This record gives sequence, C-alpha cells and structure tokens, in this order.
Amino acid sequence: MDDGPPKRKLKLVVEYDGTDFAGWQRQTEQRTVQGTLEDAVRELLGETTEVRGAGRTDAGVHADGQVASLALGSRIPAGGFLRGINSILPGDVAVVDATEVDATFDARFSARGKVYRYRIWNHFVRSPRHTRGSWHCRAPLDLEAMRAAARVLVGEHDFRGFRAADCDRRNTVRVIRRFELGRQGALVELEVEATAFLKNMVRILVGTLADVGRGKRDVAAVVRALETGDRSAGGVTAPPQGLTLARVIY
Amino acid sequence: MDDGPPKRKLKLVVEYDGTDFAGWQRQTEQRTVQGTLEDAVRELLGETTEVRGAGRTDAGVHADGQVASLALGSRIPAGGFLRGINSILPGDVAVVDATEVDATFDARFSARGKVYRYRIWNHFVRSPRHTRGSWHCRAPLDLEAMRAAARVLVGEHDFRGFRAADCDRRNTVRVIRRFELGRQGALVELEVEATAFLKNMVRILVGTLADVGRGKRDVAAVVRALETGDRSAGGVTAPPQGLTLARVIY
Repeated sequence: MDDGPPKRKLKLVVEYDGTDFAGWQRQTEQRTVQGTLEDAVRELLGETTEVRGAGRTDAGVHADGQVASLALGSRIPAGGFLRGINSILPGDVAVVDATEVDATFDARFSARGKVYRYRIWNHFVRSPRHTRGSWHCRAPLDLEAMRAAARVLVGEHDFRGFRAADCDRRNTVRVIRRFELGRQGALVELEVEATAFLKNMVRILVGTLADVGRGKRDVAAVVRALETGDRSAGGVTAPPQGLTLARVIY
Repeated sequence: MDDGPPKRKLKLVVEYDGTDFAGWQRQTEQRTVQGTLEDAVRELLGETTEVRGAGRTDAGVHADGQVASLALGSRIPAGGFLRGINSILPGDVAVVDATEVDATFDARFSARGKVYRYRIWNHFVRSPRHTRGSWHCRAPLDLEAMRAAARVLVGEHDFRGFRAADCDRRNTVRVIRRFELGRQGALVELEVEATAFLKNMVRILVGTLADVGRGKRDVAAVVRALETGDRSAGGVTAPPQGLTLARVIY
C-alpha cells in the first residue's frame, strides 16, 4: 500500500466564541469548531484531514487557547497557512498561531495539562455586555468560603462524583494543580489547572463552589462529595457560556 | 387644560450591547435602545413616556453607563421598576440602576460631561472573542506617538474638523478634559472625557490617533487638522463596535 509522500504536522492555537457552535467535535448537520476548521483546510489546500483538538469543548464553551494538530501533505509554510485559513474561517473562530511540529506530536495525547477559566457575573442585575461570556449569579458570593472549598479539591483525587452522567471513562483520578479565584467588581473569575478533566468536570466544580459561595453548601459537603463519589452530593452543572479553555500545556 | 397628577422623575443607568441595535434614538421600523426601553415601560406600567438619553449613541455603539431620564405617573418604587423593567427587556439591554431624582433633572441637559472608551485589537490575527467590542488594527501601534497626539487634543478647541458631515451643530467648541491610552497585550484601550462630543467625534479622533500610531500621520498633522477645521485633514471614522459610552457625569 502506498501512503503517498510523507506528511508534516502543524500545531495550531485556536480561539473561538463558542456561542454559535455545537461544541468542538465534528457532527453531521451541526456547526462545530472541528468541522468548520476541517472544511476550511479542505477549501484552502484541497486536503481532507482530521484536525485533532486537545479538548472536546461542549456546545457554548469558548476557547482562547485550544490546541489542535493536523497532518498535511502540502508544503505550505506555517505563516502562509495561518493567513490563508483565517481568510476562510468565519468571524467566530480563528487560528491565532501555527507552528511546525514533530510528527509524533498529537494535540490530545501530548497534552500534559489544561487551564480552564470560568466567569461569573455576580450582581443582582444581569449584564448585557457579559451575557455571552459569564454565568449570572444574583446572590452575593463569599469568595473566601469558595477558596477554602477549592483548596480541598486541589491535588490528586477520584473525581467520579464530578462528571457528566454519560461520561464513560474508567480512570476517574485526576490531579488539580491549582484552583484560583478572584473578583473585579461584579466579575468573579475562577481559573483551574489540571492534568486532564472529565466530561463537565469544570462546570460541576464551579456549580459546587457557587453553592458554597452563596451558603447553600459548606466545605464539609464538598469533602463528602469528593469522598463518596456521588454526583448528587455536588452542585449543578454551571452553564457553558461562562467557560473558556484558556490554554493547553505540553 | 388638565395635566393630570404631578409626575415624578427617574434617572436610569442603562447598559447595552449595541451590536443588534440601530443606535439609541427611536426610529420607526428599526430596533433601537430608546424604542425598546419605551416599549418595556409601556408594557410594565401602561404609560407612554419619552425615555431621554444623555447621549444618542450610533448604531453598533455600546454603553456601560448610558443615563436616561423619564417622567412617570406611576408611584412604583425605583427598586420595583428596576426589577420589573429588566424582566421585560431583551438580553442585550438592561437598566442597571434606577433612582428617584428631582423634577428638573434631564439626562441630556443636566449632563456635565461624558466618558467614552474605545478598544482596538492590535494584532496581525483577528480575535473572535473581541470582534463585537473592538476595532481590529493589524499594524503595530506606537502608543507613545498616539499619546503625544492625544495631548494636543486635550483642552478647549473647535472640533469642527472632527465631526460627521451631517452634524449641524452651530457651536463646535468642546473641552476634552483627559485622553488616556493604555495597552494590555494586544488590547489597546483609549478613554476620553469631554464636556460633550460632536457627532462621530470620538470615532474620528480615534481614527486619527490610529493613523499616528501606525506612522501614517504625525502630530503636526493633527495640529493642522485642529487648526484648519478641515475634516479631510483627519483620519477615518473608526468603526462603531469599538466604542462604549462608559459613563455620564452630572
């Protein structure tokens, strides 16, 4: 069998506003980020190739620094690829960096960690200018209580109680390296870095911390949810529009 | 003639994402912020009243702190008005504060100054997450040169060269109190405070400073544009989506 000429690999950093995408992963009849990128590559180079993302973000979730890899037969320089692809892509997605990488690089399997950011608009009136990028929580959040709960989550734990019902991963042990919270006016920002995340894990962690922040749950309840692995012991799944895949670590 | 019972006045602080509005001012067959607010007041209280804005922002221009005043026959408390109106208003506009004011207060004529903010995404690749709120300028901007030009504009000047062709104001003398520029990564932010502004004045000032920033125009050219009052001596009118009415001073 002939595999054709050897292919080279590109690593892309991808930014998108997830509002009008049905998530990262290609699906028939749905507008997805992966599908949009693969279509643009085909239009630019006439090649059909898989654009592999580091994280399969859900519908409505944004990215400032999603990373994707793709194998190309074309010898187009990385800079030319960057300019060309962005002239084809729609306004809500762009490739912000493209670099030549070793053939062994895989955006998903080479990743050593990911950083997610979650924004909460914490004011009794909603904010029209933050609607697309934050979760509106009316009740005042006690950040000190939330920080105490976040500290419990940092480290190596079995996070089986903090994942979507349809998540079928066998190994549910993950390491949260840091979990930071800050506030600027009404805007509360959470940043969490881990080796990897289970499906919906960040959103469930945020929903649980928000309950702690508004006094509906205490730190002991978070410890219990972690120990029992019971999804019903945690908080709601925070809505997707507050979440951003900030960057991927290699 | 009977004017009915005496009316009371409310001062509103209004926030909106201007993307899907044809500007502030009510127009037939167009979706405007003023029209949307007046319709919501009618739905909430059954009263037809003018919602007077401090500034008539153009189509696509945003506001964090537009101020509006309205006379009401209803005795609804300001807090009840706030909750009620926001439950009716669409997601891209909200009343973020409502207070009882003296009957002589008029959002437009009582204003003693306004602060506008303008954002430029200054990077060779566009940013999907900043598309709705910034102007994309590819060429690197020299902020020091722009600051030197901004200093020339501060103070009392005849700004007739920095206004829309259809602006029919007789008095074109305005006082710019401060004009500040900053950068955070690729995001360049300009903030300008003045007694009042002529039509499109901020956007033309920004277009002119951007020319200085990319070396297409020098400070002397800005001085000339100011002295001659010739619109063609200034820069382009920067696009509306970068502009935000930050606040109104009383």
